[in-house]
Amino acid sequence: MDIQALRKAHPEHWMRAAAIRTLALDGVAAANSGHSGMPMGMADVATVLYEKHLRFDPKAPNWPDRDRFILSAGHGSMLLYALLHLTGYEQASLQQLKDFRQWGARTAGHPEYGHMEGIETTTGPLGQGIANSVGFAIAEEILRARYGKGVVNHHTYVIAGDGCLMEGISQEAIGLAGMQKLGSLIVFFDNNNITIDGTVDLADITDQTARFEASGWHVIEIDGHDPVAIDKAIVQAKADPRPSMISCKTHIALGHAAQDTSKGHGALTDADQMAAAKAAYGWDYAPFEIPADVKSQWEAFGARGATAHAEWQTRFDKLSKGKQDEFNRALNLDAPKKLSATIKAFKKQATEAGAKMATRSSSEKVLEVINPIMAETVGGSADLTGSNNTKTADLGVFNPDNRAGRFIHYGIREHGMAAAMNGMALHGGIRPYSGTFMCFTDYARGAMRLSALMEVPAVYVMTHDSIGLGEDGPTHQPVEHLAMLRATPNTHVFRPADSVEVAEAWELALTAKKTPSVLALSRQGLPLVRKDHKNKNMSAQGAYVLADAEAGKRQAILMATGSEVSVAMAARDILEADGIGTRVVSMPCWELFEAQEEKIRKRVLPGGPVRVAIEAGVRLGWDKWLLGERGKEAKAGFIGMNSFGASAPAPELFEKFGITAEATAQKVRDLLA
Amino acid sequence: MDIQALRKAHPEHWMRAAAIRTLALDGVAAANSGHSGMPMGMADVATVLYEKHLRFDPKAPNWPDRDRFILSAGHGSMLLYALLHLTGYEQASLQQLKDFRQWGARTAGHPEYGHMEGIETTTGPLGQGIANSVGFAIAEEILRARYGKGVVNHHTYVIAGDGCLMEGISQEAIGLAGMQKLGSLIVFFDNNNITIDGTVDLADITDQTARFEASGWHVIEIDGHDPVAIDKAIVQAKADPRPSMISCKTHIALGHAAQDTSKGHGALTDADQMAAAKAAYGWDYAPFEIPADVKSQWEAFGARGATAHAEWQTRFDKLSKGKQDEFNRALNLDAPKKLSATIKAFKKQATEAGAKMATRSSSEKVLEVINPIMAETVGGSADLTGSNNTKTADLGVFNPDNRAGRFIHYGIREHGMAAAMNGMALHGGIRPYSGTFMCFTDYARGAMRLSALMEVPAVYVMTHDSIGLGEDGPTHQPVEHLAMLRATPNTHVFRPADSVEVAEAWELALTAKKTPSVLALSRQGLPLVRKDHKNKNMSAQGAYVLADAEAGKRQAILMATGSEVSVAMAARDILEADGIGTRVVSMPCWELFEAQEEKIRKRVLPGGPVRVAIEAGVRLGWDKWLLGERGKEAKAGFIGMNSFGASAPAPELFEKFGITAEATAQKVRDLLA
Repeated sequence: MDIQALRKAHPEHWMRAAAIRTLALDGVAAANSGHSGMPMGMADVATVLYEKHLRFDPKAPNWPDRDRFILSAGHGSMLLYALLHLTGYEQASLQQLKDFRQWGARTAGHPEYGHMEGIETTTGPLGQGIANSVGFAIAEEILRARYGKGVVNHHTYVIAGDGCLMEGISQEAIGLAGMQKLGSLIVFFDNNNITIDGTVDLADITDQTARFEASGWHVIEIDGHDPVAIDKAIVQAKADPRPSMISCKTHIALGHAAQDTSKGHGALTDADQMAAAKAAYGWDYAPFEIPADVKSQWEAFGARGATAHAEWQTRFDKLSKGKQDEFNRALNLDAPKKLSATIKAFKKQATEAGAKMATRSSSEKVLEVINPIMAETVGGSADLTGSNNTKTADLGVFNPDNRAGRFIHYGIREHGMAAAMNGMALHGGIRPYSGTFMCFTDYARGAMRLSALMEVPAVYVMTHDSIGLGEDGPTHQPVEHLAMLRATPNTHVFRPADSVEVAEAWELALTAKKTPSVLALSRQGLPLVRKDHKNKNMSAQGAYVLADAEAGKRQAILMATGSEVSVAMAARDILEADGIGTRVVSMPCWELFEAQEEKIRKRVLPGGPVRVAIEAGVRLGWDKWLLGERGKEAKAGFIGMNSFGASAPAPELFEKFGITAEATAQKVRDLLA
Repeated sequence: MDIQALRKAHPEHWMRAAAIRTLALDGVAAANSGHSGMPMGMADVATVLYEKHLRFDPKAPNWPDRDRFILSAGHGSMLLYALLHLTGYEQASLQQLKDFRQWGARTAGHPEYGHMEGIETTTGPLGQGIANSVGFAIAEEILRARYGKGVVNHHTYVIAGDGCLMEGISQEAIGLAGMQKLGSLIVFFDNNNITIDGTVDLADITDQTARFEASGWHVIEIDGHDPVAIDKAIVQAKADPRPSMISCKTHIALGHAAQDTSKGHGALTDADQMAAAKAAYGWDYAPFEIPADVKSQWEAFGARGATAHAEWQTRFDKLSKGKQDEFNRALNLDAPKKLSATIKAFKKQATEAGAKMATRSSSEKVLEVINPIMAETVGGSADLTGSNNTKTADLGVFNPDNRAGRFIHYGIREHGMAAAMNGMALHGGIRPYSGTFMCFTDYARGAMRLSALMEVPAVYVMTHDSIGLGEDGPTHQPVEHLAMLRATPNTHVFRPADSVEVAEAWELALTAKKTPSVLALSRQGLPLVRKDHKNKNMSAQGAYVLADAEAGKRQAILMATGSEVSVAMAARDILEADGIGTRVVSMPCWELFEAQEEKIRKRVLPGGPVRVAIEAGVRLGWDKWLLGERGKEAKAGFIGMNSFGASAPAPELFEKFGITAEATAQKVRDLLA
């Protein structure tokens, strides 16, 4: 690569891009850790994007109609930090860049959502960003349809590398975006032919152009170091009604001794080599020093957005008060005032009807009353719409012909679905929920963890939540998944027992602002256990006494969740008939129970001779609740699974695996004996 | 679709295929559950494959050089069961077909490996089968290079549907197979344009032909109901040096009222409609009845393989005794006799050297002595070769130019890697191990669960196993992953503390026959804690006393794993100096400890006043060990994580999150107070 020719051809552009390259080198060198080469390779693309196209206002980083810039290749985080610093984001101070990868800094090793304004999403696990971006673009379409293009009309730009495109999730994203014709989505492929292990052909020979085109994308191939070509490609991409992929032939670690090598992917900290690279750039400044003229050019790009922002505000102010309020309410993740009363009314009706019903069906019925009053909900399913019961009559299907639709057929793409949900939620204005079989939490897991890490209140409707699934067999029967989800920080795992608890779980999920929720729902019909209607959301306590022994006669506490709460109730009937006073505690959400004061937890789970937990999953985690109060430890038993499931009708499976009222009662008797 | 024209064009073929179609209808009707339409749609392809191409011997279902047939679209399980029954697999009795999806039957809802001979892999979670098949084909290439094509020379055939191809894992499989030029891999795409939610274009418009070609595949498009075209395509596919995809335009539920609809995807049990379909087929027989002439034709296909098998045996017998023994030993998953002595010698050397070393580096050193004596190991990494330390000098890289290579650059494809490992192990003759960062267990999870369910002894080398990863930050720092893995049945989760425990873990992983192992390994250097060399594999006990208090003076037990064992040892030094007798228990593998007799568990973890567990992960699951013996319950504490991690140098993270010897000692003091 002839650096000097590049310098001469576009000298001002060159220096602007060199500012990114040198900040990346300096930041990584200061941390003695990180990835220098990617920012150095993509500096030209990023410079042109921020200079000529990106619509943003560093003084109002959360301006709702800004363009989104997503660094899917998150290891190149210094690229983003440099851009935010150069264009004048207050939180992206020079000190932050100097503190790259240090405790307490906003400049984490990979971009972390919430750490610094201007970071639109957490990236690092490869492929997540490009899959998030599909959600961003969908959210933009839905909100444009709802509020008009005077208020919502922006682009989602992504930088993705070979790593992102090798991850399977990228295919799910590409397929979904192509079908949905998300024209406002523009992906720059950092086509540098280098991965950590070596050149890409060590593991892949895919023609990415042909691959994207196969899924309906518009593709442009350019020299990623030619600012004129970059600009022209972005203009073309914006004009095309399809999602666009701009394949940018780049040189990783451009101008450094490690250019075009896998070494260039990592931390380039050799002082002599850094000096040589800077000399080649014509960059004769101290570490982290940006010459005033270059900085002022960058700041001018940052200042440019103020006008567009002000014009937008004028247009927004012309919306009706109702629309403005709704827009702002959704952005703030505030539930509508009616929600609480709607849930209460639903609970009242459910207790009065007393119907046996699968909790997945209860969930559908709850959604039928919620969706009409929450325009911000966007539902979906990974090709199990009729099984997940996530589609209500009023939603309409979102597709290229109906941008106002609020139900998404994600296809058989659990991971892409979860990542798109994250993107929608991060975009703002949307509360995404969507479903698959609970066992396929496995497939969605990479993105579900990021919901928790990013504090995004997505709602995962995971139906068919145990061996109660029946004949489909062990590949479709979760046994370890409740434990997996409970192990994950900042995740509310709801396993409601009946229609009332389902309604309560939905209320909690839809009022959460910083926590994703998983609703584990049954395939099979379940009796109503909450027969006394209470206004209070009992599930908010995480666990509560559903039925008790006579005062002073309690010998056993049965703890259960979901479909096993009715098993516990039936076991209690047996035990009480035997004269064994028995309390039943429903525990729809461990995390909320853990968050209670100790006195509440003790009131629900007091000391006593025997405790038995019943859950059609593995025991891992239950011992915490089985232990009992210090000094009053209970004899403990567990009724559940200690293996994978099997293929047979569900009632037979519960019998064969011993998850029955009689087995529970016998366990209590044995422990008391 | 003109059924009658199809019947007339190839009457004998038609009736053979109709046998599959009607068995699928009858099996699903008997179960009142299942998927009728896929077998009905792909019956012609399967018939031609089994009639004219598939090399198999129902009397010797595990003949090593058989062709493999993988039903990636596992919901169409009745297709496979019908084929196995018709061709004469003893375990695929008619009764089994009648007992489809019932308790105890071999004919589970989805094909389950190990339930019936002829089922090569467990499918059902979509995309797994096609990704397994890449491993099957790699195994075949490696073994052919090693034993010659007289002994190993077969094909891997796959049926995949739209669901398989929408799942991201399929892209990982397609990319890897294309780059590796796996010419013996032939995938039939059941191109029926129907998913559960409706037509494919609800969610996808991908041109699958173009997509496969973009990754270097040979693609043929045919009418999937034309037996001549099917045969011709298979002939072409076998001749082409690239992996082949045969796109078969088919009609789901062919000939049934539900043909070409998403209803046709499910259970077609309406008696009148079944009767009408059978009438259209010209099939005038009772449920499950196969006319003798049709059955005898099918059985002839099954008998055909006996000759090829006998010829193969002759060739195999000409191998040297050493080669034969090695081949059989690997197939039987027997470790070489030398393994035990090799591990002991390694341990002796490690204790003598006493070096501080990251356990990922220890693992590399162990592999350096194992790989030369175990020709069946095949290593790899998902583009983190230098970080996972899985490549030893002797392996060579497996690629189209070096089929004898034993190290695979899987690319940035954790899920595809894990699924390919399953395929290699299932093929037989290979013990696959491979690595990524432990946090990306999330990505590989779908296939790792199947290792456990299928009882496949794959070895997952998961390095960078905690906040000890440091600067890369929370997206790369596992905190919940140990709990997730421990929650999964039939999975050995090893977290070794030093070089000695690493060697022991490898010995256990490589002698396991029915259980996958995960090795959670540190990025950071760890001191040697097992200073007294013992011949015995202490890790085989799961947990053991590493250091003890003076007799009669024990006040506390510290339990730890991996990098925190040395923290526990340092805490013990502090406590003993304070006069607090302290035992340290290293717990490298919970599952093996759980499998011990109770008296051994009690000996390691006797009753006593205080127990503290130390692990740089979440607490979930630890309460089981913290509880202590009934009646002698311990006061318990936990030193670990209760949130996601952060980006900073590792030593600072351990300080900030309070995972230190001093914090541990203080916790013990507090509990004793």
